[in-house]
Amino acid sequence: MATGKTLKELAEYLGGTVAGDVGKTVTGVASLDDAGSEQITFLANPKYAAKVATTRAGAVVLPPGAERHGRNAIVVANPYLAFAKLLTLFHVASRPSRGILDGARVGQGVKVGENVTVYPGATLGDGVTLGDRVTIHPGAVVYEGVTIGDDVTIHANAVVYQGCRIGNRVTIHGGTVIGSDGFGYAPDGDGYYKIPQLGIVVIEEDVEIGANTVIDRAALTATVIGRGTKIDNLVQVAHNCVIGQNCTIVSQVGISGSTRLGNHVTLAGQVGVAGHLTIGDNVMVGAKSGIPGNVPSGSLVSGIPAFGHREWLRSMAVVPKLPDLKKTVAALEKRVMELEEKLAAG
Amino acid sequence: MATGKTLKELAEYLGGTVAGDVGKTVTGVASLDDAGSEQITFLANPKYAAKVATTRAGAVVLPPGAERHGRNAIVVANPYLAFAKLLTLFHVASRPSRGILDGARVGQGVKVGENVTVYPGATLGDGVTLGDRVTIHPGAVVYEGVTIGDDVTIHANAVVYQGCRIGNRVTIHGGTVIGSDGFGYAPDGDGYYKIPQLGIVVIEEDVEIGANTVIDRAALTATVIGRGTKIDNLVQVAHNCVIGQNCTIVSQVGISGSTRLGNHVTLAGQVGVAGHLTIGDNVMVGAKSGIPGNVPSGSLVSGIPAFGHREWLRSMAVVPKLPDLKKTVAALEKRVMELEEKLAAG
Amino acid sequence: MATGKTLKELAEYLGGTVAGDVGKTVTGVASLDDAGSEQITFLANPKYAAKVATTRAGAVVLPPGAERHGRNAIVVANPYLAFAKLLTLFHVASRPSRGILDGARVGQGVKVGENVTVYPGATLGDGVTLGDRVTIHPGAVVYEGVTIGDDVTIHANAVVYQGCRIGNRVTIHGGTVIGSDGFGYAPDGDGYYKIPQLGIVVIEEDVEIGANTVIDRAALTATVIGRGTKIDNLVQVAHNCVIGQNCTIVSQVGISGSTRLGNHVTLAGQVGVAGHLTIGDNVMVGAKSGIPGNVPSGSLVSGIPAFGHREWLRSMAVVPKLPDLKKTVAALEKRVMELEEKLAAG
Repeated sequence: MATGKTLKELAEYLGGTVAGDVGKTVTGVASLDDAGSEQITFLANPKYAAKVATTRAGAVVLPPGAERHGRNAIVVANPYLAFAKLLTLFHVASRPSRGILDGARVGQGVKVGENVTVYPGATLGDGVTLGDRVTIHPGAVVYEGVTIGDDVTIHANAVVYQGCRIGNRVTIHGGTVIGSDGFGYAPDGDGYYKIPQLGIVVIEEDVEIGANTVIDRAALTATVIGRGTKIDNLVQVAHNCVIGQNCTIVSQVGISGSTRLGNHVTLAGQVGVAGHLTIGDNVMVGAKSGIPGNVPSGSLVSGIPAFGHREWLRSMAVVPKLPDLKKTVAALEKRVMELEEKLAAG
Repeated sequence: MATGKTLKELAEYLGGTVAGDVGKTVTGVASLDDAGSEQITFLANPKYAAKVATTRAGAVVLPPGAERHGRNAIVVANPYLAFAKLLTLFHVASRPSRGILDGARVGQGVKVGENVTVYPGATLGDGVTLGDRVTIHPGAVVYEGVTIGDDVTIHANAVVYQGCRIGNRVTIHGGTVIGSDGFGYAPDGDGYYKIPQLGIVVIEEDVEIGANTVIDRAALTATVIGRGTKIDNLVQVAHNCVIGQNCTIVSQVGISGSTRLGNHVTLAGQVGVAGHLTIGDNVMVGAKSGIPGNVPSGSLVSGIPAFGHREWLRSMAVVPKLPDLKKTVAALEKRVMELEEKLAAG
Repeated sequence: MATGKTLKELAEYLGGTVAGDVGKTVTGVASLDDAGSEQITFLANPKYAAKVATTRAGAVVLPPGAERHGRNAIVVANPYLAFAKLLTLFHVASRPSRGILDGARVGQGVKVGENVTVYPGATLGDGVTLGDRVTIHPGAVVYEGVTIGDDVTIHANAVVYQGCRIGNRVTIHGGTVIGSDGFGYAPDGDGYYKIPQLGIVVIEEDVEIGANTVIDRAALTATVIGRGTKIDNLVQVAHNCVIGQNCTIVSQVGISGSTRLGNHVTLAGQVGVAGHLTIGDNVMVGAKSGIPGNVPSGSLVSGIPAFGHREWLRSMAVVPKLPDLKKTVAALEKRVMELEEKLAAG
C-alpha cells in the first residue's frame, strides 16, 4: 500500500477541486459503507447520495453539484473514473523489474529493453524484440521474430506465434493464443488442402486481451486489433479481421474471417459475427446475437439473425404467445368460414 | 488393476447386500455385454433386465426388487452410482507421490504438505501453500501467495493467479485459468481506464473444473465456486460471481459479472447469463438459452430470452409454421374485408 | 523462399497444362493486383477475369476455358487449390529438424523417430512414442503413454493426456487440450460422484485442430476424430463422440457426449449439438444453431432448435413482424365478432 496523500495532491492527480480540508491525508480507497477515517470513498450512483452524510470516510469524491454534508470532498466530473484511478494509485503495487531470470529460455538474437522481467519457464524465440518494462510470466511462449513494445505484460502460458507485433501498454492474460493459423482450406477431392497462413497479428497500443482467447494470424496480411480495444476471455477473432479502436468485445464472442469492425463497437457476450462483413462505428450488439450482414454505424441490434434491438424486444415478447396466436388464427378461420357460408346461404 | 475382492467386501464398500455366494471373488467391472466370469457388471437401466439372465459376468449389481436369475448379486439403491464406485475401486490407479521433482520451479517461502508430486516444468510462486497429496502437472503455473488444500490435482498448463484459494479435493484440468483479471473499465474520454481487479477467486471443496475454462478474480472481494460444483470445459465465470453448491455448469456456458447462483443449479451447454442477477436453487436452464433477469428457485427455463421450458417448446413448435401463419392472417384479412363489404352493401 | 520454378515444373506439380512459355520461371505467388513479372497469380473468381489482361504477373493459373489474353498460363481444374499449393511450394519454409533440445523434458522409455524437433520446455511423459519428423513446441505437455505418428506438429502449451493416440500428419495448435476427463458424474445424495474416465482420444490422420480447443477422453472406449477432419479454435468435443472423416467444425462449436457425426459434416460457428445423437453424412448446420435430435444425411438445417435451413430463413423473416401480426389478429378478432353480431342481429 502506498503512503498517504493529501486531498490537494489527489485533486491534482484526478483533475478535480477540493472542498474542505486540502491538507487532509488519506491512505486508501473504499466503498461508502466500508471506508474509515483514513480512507477516501466516492459517490458514483446518485441513489446513494444520502450515504455521504453517514459514511465514516475521511473524504468523498463527488460529482459536481452533489451535497457534501460538510465532508471533505474532491469534486470531479466522473467519480467512477476517479475511483478506478485512486484504486490504481493506492492499491496496485508496481512489481520491481527482475531482469531475465534463471530458467527463462532466450533464443538467439533476442533484443531486450530496460527493466524487463522474464520469469523462469518463459520462452523467447530467436530474434524476439522486447521493449522497456515488459513482464513475461512463466510458461508464456513467444515464437521467433515477435516484436513487443514497452510496458507489455504477457501472463502465464500465453502463446504468441512467429512474427506477430504487440504494441505498447498491451496486457495479454493467461492461456491466450495470438497468431495461430487461420482456419482456411481448399477442397481437394474428398478432403481439404491447407491454405498456408502467412500473415501475422498486429495488436495496437493499450489493448487488453483476457484469458484463453484466440486471435488467428492472417492468411497473407495482418489480423489487426485496434488501439485501446478491450477483449474478454474465450473470444475468437478469425484470420484477416480488422478490429477498430476502443471496441469492447465481451467473453465468448466469435468473429469470423475478414470481418472489419469500426471504432467503439460493443459486442456483448456470446455474439457471433459472420465473415467478410463491415460493422460500422459505435455499433452495439446484444448478447448471444448473430450478425449475418453488414451493420451501419450507430446501430443497436439483437437477435439471431439480428435486427433493431427495440424491435427485437417487441418480437421476443410475442414469442411466448405464439401457441395462443396460432389457436386464435385457427379459430378465426373457422369463424370466417362460417360467416362466409351464412352470407352465401343468406 | 487392483487384486480381487469378494462380494462381501464389495457389498460393504457399496453399502449393499449380497444375494448368492458372498465369497465369490471378482477382479474388475464391465458392461452386461462384455463382462466375464471374473468381473462384476451392473443393471442401471430396467430395459436391459433380461440381460441379467444371459450375461457371462461373475456377479451383478442390481437395484432392489430386480430378478437375479440365480446370479450372484449385490443389491444397492443406486446401481449406476455403484458402477462408478467399482470403476474407481478396480480401475483408477493412485499415482505414488514423487515429491518435488527436478525441474519444478519453486519460489521463496513455499510451504508443501506430505506426499505431494510437483512435476518438472511446474511453477510455484513465492509464498504458495500446498496441502497433502497435491499433484501439480508440468507447465501448471501457480502465482505467488496461492493457497491449495489437500488432495488437489492441477493438470498441465493450468494457471492460478496470485492470492487465489483452492479447497480440498479440487481438480483443475489442463489450460484452465483461475483468477485472471475481471473485465472492468471506466470510460475515460474516447477510451477506457482499467479498474484494478484486486480481489481473488475462492474454489471450495470437492469442485472439479474442466479444461480451458476461465474464472476471473473479483474486483474487490472474491469470485466463489461453491462446494461440490462441477464445471465443464471452456466455461466463462466473470468477476464477482458467487456460484452455489453442487451446481452443474456444462461446456461453453458464460456467466456475467456479479451474478449469484443458488445450490443445485444446472446450466446446460452454451447458456449465457447476464450480470448482477440472482438465480435461485435447483434452477435448470436449457442448452443455448440466454438469461436476462432473475430466476426463481425451482424454475426450468429455455430460450433467448428464456421463459418456461414447456412453454418454450410449444412456442418453438410454432416457429417453423410462421410463414404459413402470416399467409393465413393475410388471407383472413382479405376475407373479412370482403365480408364487411358484402354486409355494408347488403 | 524457394528458388524459381519453370511453368513446366509447376504444371507437373499442379497436374495442369501450360499455355505459353513452358520455360518461364517464377519465384513466388501473389494476387492479380499485386503480382509482379517474377510471380505467378491465379484466377479463382470469374468476376475478376478482366484482370488477367491487365495484371503485371509473369504467369496466371486459369480454369479451363478462361481467356488467357496472351499471358503465360497454367490451366488447372481448381485454381484456388492450385493457389494454396503454390503458396505452400514457394512460401512455406520447412523447419530443419533440431533433435531433442536441451531443456526438453523427456520421461523414461520414450521412443523417438527420425528428424524430430522437441523444443526446450516441452514435456514427453514416460513411454511416449514419437514418429518421424515430429515437432513439439515449447510448453507442450504430452502425458505418459501417448503415441504420436509421423509429421505431427504440436504447438506451444498444447496438452495431450495419457494414452491418447495421434495419427500421421496431424497439427494441434497452441493451448489445445486433448484427452481431459469427460464430464461425467453420478448423483450421490446431495452431491456428485465422479465417474472415472478411463478411455482415450484417437485423432486419425490428416486432422488439424485449432487453438484452445478441448477434446475429452471417453469414459471407457475412445473419443474419435476421423481422418481429414478440420477443427477450429475453442471447440468442445465431449467424451465418447465419434466424428467422421473430412468434417469441418468451426470455432466455438460444442458437441455433447456420445454423439456421432458422419463424414463431410459441416458445423458452422457456435453450433451446439446435444448428446447421444447421430448426425448423417454431408450434413450442414448453420451458425449458432442448436441440434436437439438426429439429423439425416444430406440435411441443411438452422435454428434453435434447428429445422430446414430454407424454412428457417422464411420463419426468421417473419420474426420482426410478429408484433404487427399479433395486432392484426387482435383487430381481426374484433372485426369478426362485429360481423358475427351484425349477422346475428340481421
